[in-house]
Amino acid sequence: MIIQLEKEITPKSKEEIIKKAGDFKYKLTEVKTQVGDYLIGTGKSEFDIREIGFMPGISDIHIVSDNYKLVSRKWKVKLTAIDLGDGVLIGDDHFAIMTGPCSIEGEEQIRQTIDHCAKNGIRLMRGGVYKPRSSPYSFRGMGIDGLKLWYEHAKAAGIKIVTEVMQVSQIEEMHDYVDIFQVGARNTQNFNLLDELGKVDKTVMIKRGISGTIDELLYSAEYVFSGGNEKILLCERGIRTFENATRNTLDLNAIPVLKDKTHLPVIADPSHGIGIRKHVEPMALASIMAGADGVIYESHCTPEEAYSDGQQTLDFKESEELIKKMRMTYELRSGF
Amino acid sequence: MIIQLEKEITPKSKEEIIKKAGDFKYKLTEVKTQVGDYLIGTGKSEFDIREIGFMPGISDIHIVSDNYKLVSRKWKVKLTAIDLGDGVLIGDDHFAIMTGPCSIEGEEQIRQTIDHCAKNGIRLMRGGVYKPRSSPYSFRGMGIDGLKLWYEHAKAAGIKIVTEVMQVSQIEEMHDYVDIFQVGARNTQNFNLLDELGKVDKTVMIKRGISGTIDELLYSAEYVFSGGNEKILLCERGIRTFENATRNTLDLNAIPVLKDKTHLPVIADPSHGIGIRKHVEPMALASIMAGADGVIYESHCTPEEAYSDGQQTLDFKESEELIKKMRMTYELRSGF
Amino acid sequence: MIIQLEKEITPKSKEEIIKKAGDFKYKLTEVKTQVGDYLIGTGKSEFDIREIGFMPGISDIHIVSDNYKLVSRKWKVKLTAIDLGDGVLIGDDHFAIMTGPCSIEGEEQIRQTIDHCAKNGIRLMRGGVYKPRSSPYSFRGMGIDGLKLWYEHAKAAGIKIVTEVMQVSQIEEMHDYVDIFQVGARNTQNFNLLDELGKVDKTVMIKRGISGTIDELLYSAEYVFSGGNEKILLCERGIRTFENATRNTLDLNAIPVLKDKTHLPVIADPSHGIGIRKHVEPMALASIMAGADGVIYESHCTPEEAYSDGQQTLDFKESEELIKKMRMTYELRSGF
Amino acid sequence: MIIQLEKEITPKSKEEIIKKAGDFKYKLTEVKTQVGDYLIGTGKSEFDIREIGFMPGISDIHIVSDNYKLVSRKWKVKLTAIDLGDGVLIGDDHFAIMTGPCSIEGEEQIRQTIDHCAKNGIRLMRGGVYKPRSSPYSFRGMGIDGLKLWYEHAKAAGIKIVTEVMQVSQIEEMHDYVDIFQVGARNTQNFNLLDELGKVDKTVMIKRGISGTIDELLYSAEYVFSGGNEKILLCERGIRTFENATRNTLDLNAIPVLKDKTHLPVIADPSHGIGIRKHVEPMALASIMAGADGVIYESHCTPEEAYSDGQQTLDFKESEELIKKMRMTYELRSGF
Repeated sequence: MIIQLEKEITPKSKEEIIKKAGDFKYKLTEVKTQVGDYLIGTGKSEFDIREIGFMPGISDIHIVSDNYKLVSRKWKVKLTAIDLGDGVLIGDDHFAIMTGPCSIEGEEQIRQTIDHCAKNGIRLMRGGVYKPRSSPYSFRGMGIDGLKLWYEHAKAAGIKIVTEVMQVSQIEEMHDYVDIFQVGARNTQNFNLLDELGKVDKTVMIKRGISGTIDELLYSAEYVFSGGNEKILLCERGIRTFENATRNTLDLNAIPVLKDKTHLPVIADPSHGIGIRKHVEPMALASIMAGADGVIYESHCTPEEAYSDGQQTLDFKESEELIKKMRMTYELRSGF
Repeated sequence: MIIQLEKEITPKSKEEIIKKAGDFKYKLTEVKTQVGDYLIGTGKSEFDIREIGFMPGISDIHIVSDNYKLVSRKWKVKLTAIDLGDGVLIGDDHFAIMTGPCSIEGEEQIRQTIDHCAKNGIRLMRGGVYKPRSSPYSFRGMGIDGLKLWYEHAKAAGIKIVTEVMQVSQIEEMHDYVDIFQVGARNTQNFNLLDELGKVDKTVMIKRGISGTIDELLYSAEYVFSGGNEKILLCERGIRTFENATRNTLDLNAIPVLKDKTHLPVIADPSHGIGIRKHVEPMALASIMAGADGVIYESHCTPEEAYSDGQQTLDFKESEELIKKMRMTYELRSGF
Repeated sequence: MIIQLEKEITPKSKEEIIKKAGDFKYKLTEVKTQVGDYLIGTGKSEFDIREIGFMPGISDIHIVSDNYKLVSRKWKVKLTAIDLGDGVLIGDDHFAIMTGPCSIEGEEQIRQTIDHCAKNGIRLMRGGVYKPRSSPYSFRGMGIDGLKLWYEHAKAAGIKIVTEVMQVSQIEEMHDYVDIFQVGARNTQNFNLLDELGKVDKTVMIKRGISGTIDELLYSAEYVFSGGNEKILLCERGIRTFENATRNTLDLNAIPVLKDKTHLPVIADPSHGIGIRKHVEPMALASIMAGADGVIYESHCTPEEAYSDGQQTLDFKESEELIKKMRMTYELRSGF
Repeated sequence: MIIQLEKEITPKSKEEIIKKAGDFKYKLTEVKTQVGDYLIGTGKSEFDIREIGFMPGISDIHIVSDNYKLVSRKWKVKLTAIDLGDGVLIGDDHFAIMTGPCSIEGEEQIRQTIDHCAKNGIRLMRGGVYKPRSSPYSFRGMGIDGLKLWYEHAKAAGIKIVTEVMQVSQIEEMHDYVDIFQVGARNTQNFNLLDELGKVDKTVMIKRGISGTIDELLYSAEYVFSGGNEKILLCERGIRTFENATRNTLDLNAIPVLKDKTHLPVIADPSHGIGIRKHVEPMALASIMAGADGVIYESHCTPEEAYSDGQQTLDFKESEELIKKMRMTYELRSGF
């Protein structure tokens, strides 16, 4: 149950709603986001919601049978578009392309990637400055200095920054230089990180867990939303299966299923999903026909010299080709 | 190693080739198909293939490092098109749409489905007359009589028949009424059935095993090919994973991987793959962008009354819509 | 619903039972096994079973809510022991050890293995004469001649033969030389083969499918049972998962779950399950504590020279050691 | 490559070693633990290690080809025993039983569980005070106050505390009240948390990721070890597969594989692994025969009233029974 409150609701009215819901054995949790105030009810008994709906201070009330509530499309039928400012929108008829290297490696690489983006009308650049690595002895990224350097160039070019945040203590230092905080597949259920990102006024893109179910991804989004932040993107990036001809199994089935279950935009990551350079293009195009609101993929001036993930990274010529084909594919889909 | 033989090779020349290969520690297996005669060599030592290649009776020789040989694209770079006669082709620029019910249920249903196909220019109709069922107490299909009935109507309408063969003993009785023998996901590694289908002059469509790897699917095709039958289609129909929001996980990654590894046409089955009616369309379109040479999906005059698989079956209106969109999507892809 | 019939039931009484069940919207299937006659009812309505139970010709009646019926422990609470003759029993307090090579390779190997069995009191020897192979170019086993040779020696030593049957056409020729027909993991859902094995008066051991669920294994057993053959063993042999440090993932969870759901004996195959020689012993012992009624594992006089599966095969010294430990472990478990 | 340094090594000697290794294209990382000082070398070239081994300041040097180093048994052949003080040891001939509720719920429950432990000679009690929950609206545990309450009672009874730490910020406040910090399955690759636990002088038990490979678990342990903390336990708690007859698939194969690859103790968690109360016992006993150094399982005074996980929790009578059988099983195994 989702109860949307009027801005001017009195504390007394709110108390009465909570008491009334308690009578029906519903526990209400208060949620305040950038956009509105809600009471989220969890419980199992059945009752006539009009008995609550007519109480003063309530602007709307919905029964949501899913275990996730605020991210459910049963509540918010209209698709959400995330507005990143400067005319950059994602979702609900706004298709997003995000590209760039696995790791930010230095100024020259930043400059060349931004040129590539600018030349092709790409407004969102991805790149890692904090890298999750299986081995403690591997390169862990350029850190905050790399981010600041990147930000300088990106800002000048009107390009938004998409980058992974790995831990709570990084949020504050990264905050002013980031447009989209990415939560990696190993952190999809790092509930503490999700809680903290709920308090931030920046878009959060949550990647599906390495073997996370679609429902678990929606629960993770519910954490961020109920923490106060409604600006959420979901990202399918491949799951772990028995098949080892591909790095992961990009699960495109998740895209129509998610589009049906949630109002949030859904992004596909074919680079990590299939993990083989020559197959990134068909998977990117397929994910658009499956219904994706955007595609994130890895590109690099010289993939064979990339610090990480070179085997799945396009060079700029391949990237340019892909961008054209993605736009044509999206145009066809939009006409359907 | 694949050695293609000249038609007029003498037994003595053949013997000498076998002996020579033996000297290099290669075992040769003779393969005769509808199209040509081959000697397939398995072994591990390295040698200059010209030492064999110049021997009399050999028209061509190739090193194929894959464990599957005749189905490998390393040998046959040009993509194969399967010719079913009457202008029906599949693969290498010929896109195939196959539709029809899960089970053939009776004359009226056959008639209506054929009308639907004819009206929309569909030349390939699917349907089951022998049904694999988990429980021995379930409906197992109309059998050979259903097939004959279907054949009568299909022939009159110029429509080809795609249907599953479950066991060796059915091949002969079904033979004259079938255009494409389908091998189901539970039989992908029924090597005996594959051997016998190698002797048949009809196209064979092999579905990927329920948890079969891409390589295993190629090995299964190698059985049919080396048995003597070069007319083979491969079909991705969803694998088993931990995710249970969908019936199976249609693995579209397999499509570009297969197109890269083999010259055989690749078909996608979104109905079994995702198993949810409303999501069949996006997955069908996605599979085309992923590179599929054809799509097979379930349709029925009244899905809610179908004997089986109704939950994933389109009605004819939805089917008609999908056919149009698939053709537009294929056209876009062809232009790339 | 399972209705056990009296031997002397009249056709008229049977007809009346079928009619009555039809009134309750239950479809009855007749099943005759080596042991008894049954009517198996499938349907969903609820009714008082006494209305059928009191009819003439019925010796007993049970509601079985599982989709599998005759193999369910809800019907037959007492555990089944399979009697192979000559004092060899499996299940319900009779622990079975089966060992031998992956493939039967020749007389000397047969002789040595039988000696090894005899010396250690093992009454069941495994070995393959028909081998399922991914590649059509691999060794496919010694065939029926190998089986006859083996039989001669085994019979003389009082040892029972466990071997895989791959296709219907092999059943008859193998019949007189086999004690336990093994159905391999690729054939678990080869329903035609299961149907035919239902007509045979020999024990059938069904291996779990490569990615088969526990329920699917029970359904496959139901095919054999309802086909007329009550002598069935189930075998856990490892499932396919994302983990590739082991050949398969031997799923010991399946053992207590199966022991709870069915009255049939359950065998564990640690050789195929984990696929690494040095780890076969701990997994064999673990499967006993998990509740297995028997263990099947591969042993060979010279594993490093075995035609197949050498990497997971014990030599006779290791095998002897394992046999002792298995017996001690089973003894401890029996005391619990 | 692992270089163990002498305590009194001079900075100059250390520098020379690093330089020399650099000449061989090896990068050295300094690691200081509670026990010793190391230089960990990663690189791929081959050279004669004696060229480094003879340099001053080195006490020992080992080539370790695994990607994990300090946790590898190729370096430390002897099994590690973790000493928790007061005579409580785990690993290398010291078998550990840990039991208690999923969540700490209140004083009475704490008291009863401690009585149960004390009565049965159990020295390690598990319980959650911070609970990871999929839904943000669920009970998240009693927190630090619950932990302090628990600690008071446990200390008096000479019982050690095993509890999950979910985030870096909790480490300090929990530190004085915890004996074993448990890292949950959703945090196995929370590298930041692992880094911080490397700085703590308390034992850390790392659970295998929900779909984590065995190698990934070892890498996670390498993070803690190279962070400075050698006191590490690994815990197999079930992986995610297609099978849904059980909550997870407890992967007992991982136990012998881990015991072979690492010197660290390995614990099994059958409660989460199989997730069904009546099957916890056989899986616990099986894991001992598979080679586990300990078993952790859930017990509760009144499982049916537990706040969480009641369906997989034993009551104290069942727990007592299991403890006896585990000890007998361990005794048998020790004799092998």
